[in-house]
Amino acid sequence: MTDLDIANAAQPLHINDIAEKLHIKTEDLEHYGKYKAKLPLSLIDDKKAQKSKLILVSAISPTPAGEGKTTISIGLNEGFRKLNKSSIVVLREPSLGPVFGLKGGATGGGKSQVLPMEDINLYFTGDFSAIEKANNLLAAMIDNNIQSKTNNLNIDARTVKWKRVLDVNDRALRQIIVGLGGTTMSVPRETGFDITAASEIMAILCLTDNLSDLKARLGRIFIGFTHDKTPIYAKDLKANGAMAALLKDAVKPNLVQTIEGNPAIIHGGPFANIAQGTNSVIATKMGMSLADYTITEAGFGFDLGGEKFLNIKCQSAGLKPEVIVLTATIRALKYHGGKSLEELNIPDTDAVKKGLPNLEKHIENAQKFNIKPIIAINQFTADTDEEIQVIRDFAQQSGIKVAIANVWAKGGNGALELAQDVIETLETTSKDDFSALYKWEQPIEDKIETIAKTIYGASAVEYTAKAKVDLKRIQKLGLNHLPICMAKTQKSLSDDAALRGKPENFSLSIREIEIASGAGFIIPISGNMMRMPGLSAHPAAEQIDIDDKGHITGLF
Amino acid sequence: MTDLDIANAAQPLHINDIAEKLHIKTEDLEHYGKYKAKLPLSLIDDKKAQKSKLILVSAISPTPAGEGKTTISIGLNEGFRKLNKSSIVVLREPSLGPVFGLKGGATGGGKSQVLPMEDINLYFTGDFSAIEKANNLLAAMIDNNIQSKTNNLNIDARTVKWKRVLDVNDRALRQIIVGLGGTTMSVPRETGFDITAASEIMAILCLTDNLSDLKARLGRIFIGFTHDKTPIYAKDLKANGAMAALLKDAVKPNLVQTIEGNPAIIHGGPFANIAQGTNSVIATKMGMSLADYTITEAGFGFDLGGEKFLNIKCQSAGLKPEVIVLTATIRALKYHGGKSLEELNIPDTDAVKKGLPNLEKHIENAQKFNIKPIIAINQFTADTDEEIQVIRDFAQQSGIKVAIANVWAKGGNGALELAQDVIETLETTSKDDFSALYKWEQPIEDKIETIAKTIYGASAVEYTAKAKVDLKRIQKLGLNHLPICMAKTQKSLSDDAALRGKPENFSLSIREIEIASGAGFIIPISGNMMRMPGLSAHPAAEQIDIDDKGHITGLF
Repeated sequence: MTDLDIANAAQPLHINDIAEKLHIKTEDLEHYGKYKAKLPLSLIDDKKAQKSKLILVSAISPTPAGEGKTTISIGLNEGFRKLNKSSIVVLREPSLGPVFGLKGGATGGGKSQVLPMEDINLYFTGDFSAIEKANNLLAAMIDNNIQSKTNNLNIDARTVKWKRVLDVNDRALRQIIVGLGGTTMSVPRETGFDITAASEIMAILCLTDNLSDLKARLGRIFIGFTHDKTPIYAKDLKANGAMAALLKDAVKPNLVQTIEGNPAIIHGGPFANIAQGTNSVIATKMGMSLADYTITEAGFGFDLGGEKFLNIKCQSAGLKPEVIVLTATIRALKYHGGKSLEELNIPDTDAVKKGLPNLEKHIENAQKFNIKPIIAINQFTADTDEEIQVIRDFAQQSGIKVAIANVWAKGGNGALELAQDVIETLETTSKDDFSALYKWEQPIEDKIETIAKTIYGASAVEYTAKAKVDLKRIQKLGLNHLPICMAKTQKSLSDDAALRGKPENFSLSIREIEIASGAGFIIPISGNMMRMPGLSAHPAAEQIDIDDKGHITGLF
Repeated sequence: MTDLDIANAAQPLHINDIAEKLHIKTEDLEHYGKYKAKLPLSLIDDKKAQKSKLILVSAISPTPAGEGKTTISIGLNEGFRKLNKSSIVVLREPSLGPVFGLKGGATGGGKSQVLPMEDINLYFTGDFSAIEKANNLLAAMIDNNIQSKTNNLNIDARTVKWKRVLDVNDRALRQIIVGLGGTTMSVPRETGFDITAASEIMAILCLTDNLSDLKARLGRIFIGFTHDKTPIYAKDLKANGAMAALLKDAVKPNLVQTIEGNPAIIHGGPFANIAQGTNSVIATKMGMSLADYTITEAGFGFDLGGEKFLNIKCQSAGLKPEVIVLTATIRALKYHGGKSLEELNIPDTDAVKKGLPNLEKHIENAQKFNIKPIIAINQFTADTDEEIQVIRDFAQQSGIKVAIANVWAKGGNGALELAQDVIETLETTSKDDFSALYKWEQPIEDKIETIAKTIYGASAVEYTAKAKVDLKRIQKLGLNHLPICMAKTQKSLSDDAALRGKPENFSLSIREIEIASGAGFIIPISGNMMRMPGLSAHPAAEQIDIDDKGHITGLF
């Protein structure tokens, strides 16, 4: 059975019944069909939220199929609920692009999924579309202003940094020329499209608290310079009010359910390789207002999502997680131990051992934030007892708890050990344990170096000539105080996707640096990262179908 | 008070109560908040639909502000309801682009509006976004196939006709070059973006009956040719299943309410200047299944929306309207009589008289389909009794009914005379009266000439060299049997926006001809029409804002 088959076999409750489990009144819900609802921001209760324990689920460096941190997050929530704890899982929304690309859905797997699976993967409540519209309205207003004779801010078209976005894996849009066709059309210039998840508007939505802060952040978006070198922001184009109006519903988090009928909140933010990559502050605070234990996720690996969650989101919103669950698969450890993707089902304790340094580095990284890590082994049927024992031995030597989580096959019943481990650990921790890795006030290059050396294990950082120019621009704009949101491959701790395990003696190479002054961070782009993915030779879209009755197949 | 103020002052009913007025059960609704719901296609009942009287509201050639045909349609429905008739109004969805451009909203005006006004204008239930995604997924799959080494259909990039779409007025995207950046990126080629309403997917959604027909039509979309001149369709890329999956909710019509609490269906299809421009067949049939009188609209003027509604949509779906309500304003008649926009509030019976030939031509056009026209004067406060008398005299001479509709100020009470006129007329008509203007089987050039000469009043049709090549391509592809969906300015009966009134002795100039083989029509582009609008120098977006409590201002 595929994930979609399992999801379709489930008997979901009406969303009113899910809301009731959180003591939310039906009239407070904004329904999107029978199984989805938006929650009003008025349900956020800061006092209650401060008492909720925040649990961050992340992962080691994943195989291309992912480590299953969403599956573990959902399963862990089911486990908490089986133990009669007041808990909630707060996830980021899937991006549509990859659903049609290589990867399929991003709503968990097996018996640890959120429902309705196909809606959440395909379209959901339209948050991404609203973000896309706000992003592209600003772009249109920029080119319109450049073209306009009577309302012209004297923008130098060659300096415009704002890109358009689409939630499609469309590599042909990475580098384009717009505005062709002569004087009645527009001013030709080079630009490009990013994927919607990489839009600064997505980051703004994820980091904001309320509508007036949202509008202020939108106004602070950096556009480019005038011909006389004055910086231009979105507020200079009077674009931020209309953009905020477009986001009026997108800013509200979405309530759905797990296969076992437990509440889940999904809102904002995938892709920690090219974006901040965690769900919204509003969603996390909403979850914390509604439950004693709030489980959230940040990936791909802890080096990307975890680091950004802690240094950007937690520092920005005053959140303090107390436990980090590091998801690992035996498959990934063998992969880091040098085996090919085709060999991962062959039992091989030696390969698992050789892969351990990757896990070890992610544990060390979690500890640098003074938060206790727990290893969750996301169990696969091919895993042998001997292979699992390798990790148990390693964990015992390191003094780290490890739990086998068979949540794909068993749902909450497969996460009881993990849930117990988390609860026990939380009895020994305090919110005040958390310490960020760097201070926002440090110089940009210091912050980049701290992440590169401390988290990735790089020996040095190299900047291209373009990146050096970008650094000067950041200085000139007075944006040195912003935190860092690195774009880096998820496949390696380094910026070279081919280097598995725990790479050493490498330089992190910064190609260029983008400014997200509205979101409030700086984006150094390392290695050959692209902020617009491509489709594979045989895209997943080719297999997706719908029958006369509206049943979808091929979403896996 | 602005339209938004009036809309906000209304006390809307819960959508369940609106559904109840149509005898629809709450559990059949897919809610989108408290005031919007999608209707399942299972509610369409062909037998009931055949008994419903279909009333088409169109207009004379409008001023840039529009003639108010949506306002009249809504007001007329309120009038029917005041007379205790079972009626429904079925409208097309507003396009987001122009909301931020010049025009503001498109949800009626004054006391004849649909609610929630700001939702319907801004984002609604995401239908346009789903269409956009399906359109752009196909585009990405085309460029991906051209780039692919292992799954290559040998498409000649220079022949690709499929464009991307965005629901933004963004003239910089009209002509672009994509695929720059070298061999790992894509194959560079010229292309462009249209506005989403002009997407062939929109037309397919508007003309389809059900999911399997939808999928078949999506598969028939023409893409371009291989290097050895074989035509390529969307089904060759295996794109149609995934595209249909993306449209699974968009295909369902949306139920909302009028200010007076009466049911309204809104679904698909604006912009009859650059697209087919009427709401969906599914929505019209849904309306006809639920009420004895179904009021729908097609504009801008009858020459565009009306002609396409009758020749394309009615012939395709077997619909037979029995009355055409031609909306006219005193303002527009003065405009056609030679007055400038600034002079339209000055009483001037001579100018009204001079503008009558435009009205007369639209009446004559309606009669060519053997359907009885009724003139509805959309009353403005500046209109004088003398000016109105000019139209009354003209109508009497022509034997046409005329009603003054003060629906902006009075809602349904302002449409009682109009509703009575429509009901009286319907007592004398039959569905079998309707006759289409041309047969689909006629040659393409004959069909274009028929529309140009009979409807627009052209003396001849001229084709550019490019259009002649396009005609040969249509011939070669065996698509001669498709009907015509002309792209032409709404500002004039001719293809020259500057020619007001009833232009004569002009040639209709066809610049190029696009193929929409999935939707099932051919798009000759006349004059200097663009299928992607631009923003004005001071876009409406500059005035739009939202406050801390989520109240939007500046949507007018």
